[in-house]
Amino acid sequence: MPEFMDVHHGMVGITADALKAAHDADLAIQGEEEVTFKTAWADPETGVVFCLSEAPSKEAVMRIHERTGHPADEVHEVPLVV
Amino acid sequence: MPEFMDVHHGMVGITADALKAAHDADLAIQGEEEVTFKTAWADPETGVVFCLSEAPSKEAVMRIHERTGHPADEVHEVPLVV
Repeated sequence: MPEFMDVHHGMVGITADALKAAHDADLAIQGEEEVTFKTAWADPETGVVFCLSEAPSKEAVMRIHERTGHPADEVHEVPLVV
Repeated sequence: MPEFMDVHHGMVGITADALKAAHDADLAIQGEEEVTFKTAWADPETGVVFCLSEAPSKEAVMRIHERTGHPADEVHEVPLVV
């Protein structure tokens, strides 16, 4: 399954609880698109959040994030990992 | 040790070998700044590379990447992980 890194901007001040709530909302419906969200990292100072996932397509990742109310600003397929 | 995600742009067409060579160059000198690069992900189509590391500071991450010839465009401390 391809791997993706998506990026959210504008999340300045995000808390650990808010990150967990957003991630849990994704996990709750990810199976409907065969997406598996693996890890999310947040920088509360600059408001950037990175999410690593496995998914059948970029669009599948986008749809899950849109349905849970936090659309990604960028979704990158990352076939190269080291 | 704080965790960081840095981002490089403009790497369109990057190959697996080039990513490994860049990563290995970082690993070879990271100890001089107490940085530990963990994983790097690349999207050859959009030319974006993400690097996850542990380091004493953002500046330490930047110095290693600068010395190995691929300065990061962004370095985000990511204290929140889920």
